Amino acid sequence: MTPRVPAEIRTAIEYLIYDAARLIDDDRLEDWIGLFAPQCRYRVTTRENVDQNLPIALIDCDSLGMIKDRVLSYREANIYNPHLDRHVIGNVRILGEQSGVYEVHSSYTAYQTNPEGETVLFSVGKYLDKIVLIDGEPRFQEHIVIADTWAVKNLLATPL
Amino acid sequence: MTPRVPAEIRTAIEYLIYDAARLIDDDRLEDWIGLFAPQCRYRVTTRENVDQNLPIALIDCDSLGMIKDRVLSYREANIYNPHLDRHVIGNVRILGEQSGVYEVHSSYTAYQTNPEGETVLFSVGKYLDKIVLIDGEPRFQEHIVIADTWAVKNLLATPL
Amino acid sequence: MTPRVPAEIRTAIEYLIYDAARLIDDDRLEDWIGLFAPQCRYRVTTRENVDQNLPIALIDCDSLGMIKDRVLSYREANIYNPHLDRHVIGNVRILGEQSGVYEVHSSYTAYQTNPEGETVLFSVGKYLDKIVLIDGEPRFQEHIVIADTWAVKNLLATPL
Repeated sequence: MTPRVPAEIRTAIEYLIYDAARLIDDDRLEDWIGLFAPQCRYRVTTRENVDQNLPIALIDCDSLGMIKDRVLSYREANIYNPHLDRHVIGNVRILGEQSGVYEVHSSYTAYQTNPEGETVLFSVGKYLDKIVLIDGEPRFQEHIVIADTWAVKNLLATPL
Repeated sequence: MTPRVPAEIRTAIEYLIYDAARLIDDDRLEDWIGLFAPQCRYRVTTRENVDQNLPIALIDCDSLGMIKDRVLSYREANIYNPHLDRHVIGNVRILGEQSGVYEVHSSYTAYQTNPEGETVLFSVGKYLDKIVLIDGEPRFQEHIVIADTWAVKNLLATPL
Repeated sequence: MTPRVPAEIRTAIEYLIYDAARLIDDDRLEDWIGLFAPQCRYRVTTRENVDQNLPIALIDCDSLGMIKDRVLSYREANIYNPHLDRHVIGNVRILGEQSGVYEVHSSYTAYQTNPEGETVLFSVGKYLDKIVLIDGEPRFQEHIVIADTWAVKNLLATPL
C-alpha cells in the first residue's frame, strides 16, 4: 500500500536522506548534525544483530549531544584513515505515517576511496528512519543504519 | 520526453519496484509474489541474450503459478547457499503508458553478503517492467531482469 | 531547505539525469548528445582536482560541437575496449534554482562488464548539473562529473 503523502512532503523527506549522505560525502559533518531533531537517536548496527535480537550496536547515540561528541572525536582521530566517502542511496520508500512521524526505508551502498584514488566497497545495508517535520522541515527523530556488511576492513570512522 | 503521469501514480509505481527489492532483501518472498498481477511474467535474462536476440533465459516464469513454484523450491534448496541479499535501485523512469500499461526502466545493483559478513557484488543490470493498476494498486504484468553480469559465481537462488 | 519546485519539473529533471545514464548504458551516444542545451559544457574531473582547485580535467568539452566530436572519435576507438556500461544513480537532489537554471546534485556508481560477463566497479562520484528548460524539456547547460575514483584501470572511453 502506498501511503497518501503530499508530493512536497515526499520530496522533502527524500531530500533529507540525500542531504545526510551528501554532507557526509562532502565532509560537512557539522552540518550533518543539523539534520537531526532535538530529541533523536543515531544508531549503526548489523543485520545479524537485528535478526538475532541482540542489543549490540557499532554506534549508539541516543541524544544530539552524543552525536556532536562523536563528530568531534572523529575530527581528532581521522588523520589515521584519510579517505573519501561516497553514498549511493536508492529505494527511498515511506512505509507509513503515525502522529506526524514518517517511517522510511531506503537502501545504501557506501564506498571509500583512498589517497591513491582507489575505490572499495565499504558497506551495504539499509536505513530505517523515523522522520518528523519541525517548522516544516524534515528532521531525523531516528536514523538507524542496519549494515549487511560487518566484516569491515577499515575503521568505522565517518558516520554511515 | 517526460510522460504526463500524475505524481501519485509515479510514486506508487516507484514504490512497487522498491517493494520488490525490499521484500527479497528481507527474505519475504511469499509477500513478493503478491506484487504480481494475476496474468504475469517474471523473467531473468542477460544483456548478451537480448542483444543477440536469443530466446534463452536463466529464469522464465510465464504465470503466477510458476513464480509460486519457484519460491517454494527456493525455500527447500536455499540451505546450500545462505546469504543476505541487498538491492540498490536507481534511475526509475516511466518510459510511457499505453492502454493503462506503464513501461518502466530502472537500474539495479545486487549484492550478496555471506555468513562471515563479507559483501560481494553479485549482479548489475536493468529492469524493464510493465506495470498495471489493479484496484488502484500497481502490480507487475511483466517484471523482466536483464543482467549485464552473467559470470555469476554463486547459484542464482533468490530472485533478482 | 527544500526548494519549491513543481512536482512535474522535479520529475522531468530526474528523468533527464536518468536518461543520460540510460542512453550511455544502451550505447545510444548519439541520442545522449541530444540531452544537452545548445550552449553547454560537459566535464569529467576528479574530486582531488576540485578540492585542490586544479584546472585539470579528464574531459572538458565546452561546446556541443566538442561533445559530438568526442562521441565520433569514441565510435572509432572503442574496438580496443569492448564492454557494457551500467550506471546506478541515486540521491538526485535539486539544490536550488536561479533565473531558470536548476542546480542539481546526484551520486553515481558506474560499472563495466567485459565480454566474459564479469562486472567490475569502474567509478563512483557525483554529478553537479546545471539544467535549463528548453521548450518545456530539461537540458544540460552543464553536466559535470566529479569522480572520487581516479586510479582507473581501463581507458576512459565512454562518457560517465
